[in-house]
Amino acid sequence: MEKYIHKVQYYETDKMQFTHHSNYIRFMEEARTDFLEKVGFPYKRLEDCGIISPVIAVNVNYKKTTTYADNIEIEVKLKNFTGVRCEFEYIMTCNNNIVCTATSEHCFLDNNGKPISVKRTNPEFYNLMETLCEQNKN
Amino acid sequence: MEKYIHKVQYYETDKMQFTHHSNYIRFMEEARTDFLEKVGFPYKRLEDCGIISPVIAVNVNYKKTTTYADNIEIEVKLKNFTGVRCEFEYIMTCNNNIVCTATSEHCFLDNNGKPISVKRTNPEFYNLMETLCEQNKN
Amino acid sequence: MEKYIHKVQYYETDKMQFTHHSNYIRFMEEARTDFLEKVGFPYKRLEDCGIISPVIAVNVNYKKTTTYADNIEIEVKLKNFTGVRCEFEYIMTCNNNIVCTATSEHCFLDNNGKPISVKRTNPEFYNLMETLCEQNKN
Amino acid sequence: MEKYIHKVQYYETDKMQFTHHSNYIRFMEEARTDFLEKVGFPYKRLEDCGIISPVIAVNVNYKKTTTYADNIEIEVKLKNFTGVRCEFEYIMTCNNNIVCTATSEHCFLDNNGKPISVKRTNPEFYNLMETLCEQNKN
Repeated sequence: MEKYIHKVQYYETDKMQFTHHSNYIRFMEEARTDFLEKVGFPYKRLEDCGIISPVIAVNVNYKKTTTYADNIEIEVKLKNFTGVRCEFEYIMTCNNNIVCTATSEHCFLDNNGKPISVKRTNPEFYNLMETLCEQNKN
Repeated sequence: MEKYIHKVQYYETDKMQFTHHSNYIRFMEEARTDFLEKVGFPYKRLEDCGIISPVIAVNVNYKKTTTYADNIEIEVKLKNFTGVRCEFEYIMTCNNNIVCTATSEHCFLDNNGKPISVKRTNPEFYNLMETLCEQNKN
Repeated sequence: MEKYIHKVQYYETDKMQFTHHSNYIRFMEEARTDFLEKVGFPYKRLEDCGIISPVIAVNVNYKKTTTYADNIEIEVKLKNFTGVRCEFEYIMTCNNNIVCTATSEHCFLDNNGKPISVKRTNPEFYNLMETLCEQNKN
Repeated sequence: MEKYIHKVQYYETDKMQFTHHSNYIRFMEEARTDFLEKVGFPYKRLEDCGIISPVIAVNVNYKKTTTYADNIEIEVKLKNFTGVRCEFEYIMTCNNNIVCTATSEHCFLDNNGKPISVKRTNPEFYNLMETLCEQNKN
């Protein structure tokens, strides 16, 4: 899968001259959105099915700084998926150096905020995600 | 009315070493929220009444730079109010220097996104706003 | 010139379900950065020459709402240029509807924060900008 | 130590109606800034001494959602400190419920981006931090 590219904007830098660390969490979301589009199940479609998938944890390791106009390449992998929860892994590189590695965990909720298993409520999404998860393990 | 104070955060600065200009639009929203609380009609209460009030225009003049840990004092005035639209005026100072002046214009919509006059739908809010607007003109 | 496209991210929406108005100021900066790249004088190169160009005013009119996953097309024009100041104009469309129109004004400073005319300090940039400005007027 | 309070702003919410998860990283920075001020060594003073302290890792667990106008109380503790690295711990509550727990790790760099031990370069800061760290362990 082609990597997602985020070009660092001026408003994403801080007075240390680097990309502010909080923005990488946003780049993760951008890359995740892009991943779901590329595999054919955009997040918007999940929402249209009455499912939201909030972030329940993030772990981010900042390896090297980036700055204005840098192109950060982001590789996204589905690391774990149970139908109730899932975990994505991110490897961000810039000029072939790893600048950041991260994971994010998510659950699935219905429109009333109740946790659900997508296995029952959305088998098409479930099967797609399970397949992608298996592919990564091999 | 006591001025709203925004302390500039590190994540609000950019690689020019100053507060990024886009953040002043957010400081305006913070000060507006604070203004509505102080006059006794928090924006949240307006939303609970089924009214939203989107921004339809902003005009911002940046006079001096500010940076990390600066305390920006923001004076908010209700400049115009018709029940259908309203306009706020902002004067931001830091260490007694004017750093930014701005205005924002807003309309009122019901939950279906239809423009409304709050004169009919919410007379209590209408009367309060009209009084505040008159006071500023005198 | 090809329009700049900003795809609205989830983190750019707010609880009204729409793109938060403050983000359009950031889209303007993205489009301006892209404009300067396309005309062959990236902003980074200006900074490398010891020139910064802070925003001194923005005027934004919000015409229609946008939301998550919308593609906003942004047309940028150099409206005025004197060597001491310049003004950009932005027309943002989404699905062929104008969603936002805006202008931004900028000055030029040296690394000590002193206002300069780029006519003397950077004639290559001056000539390019003047030519672009003339083209827009015709 | 009095907890730091962050009042959630409208621009910090997203179309799920909740505070966007990326903003908690920024609340951590605000609370950390406030912590250093309260113990008498503002981060600005560290920068004035030629020391910067970038974030090298964050771990965030989102327990409950918050939304517009919520007051999030943030308790900050210095969990580890070696002079070369330090780790802060954050417990965020809202209406007496834990909404988020997190840690952040930091190193210390000189103005050339070279890692330093503050034990040698800034013994006053070193002693203060070591004392605070010991207090937390007891």
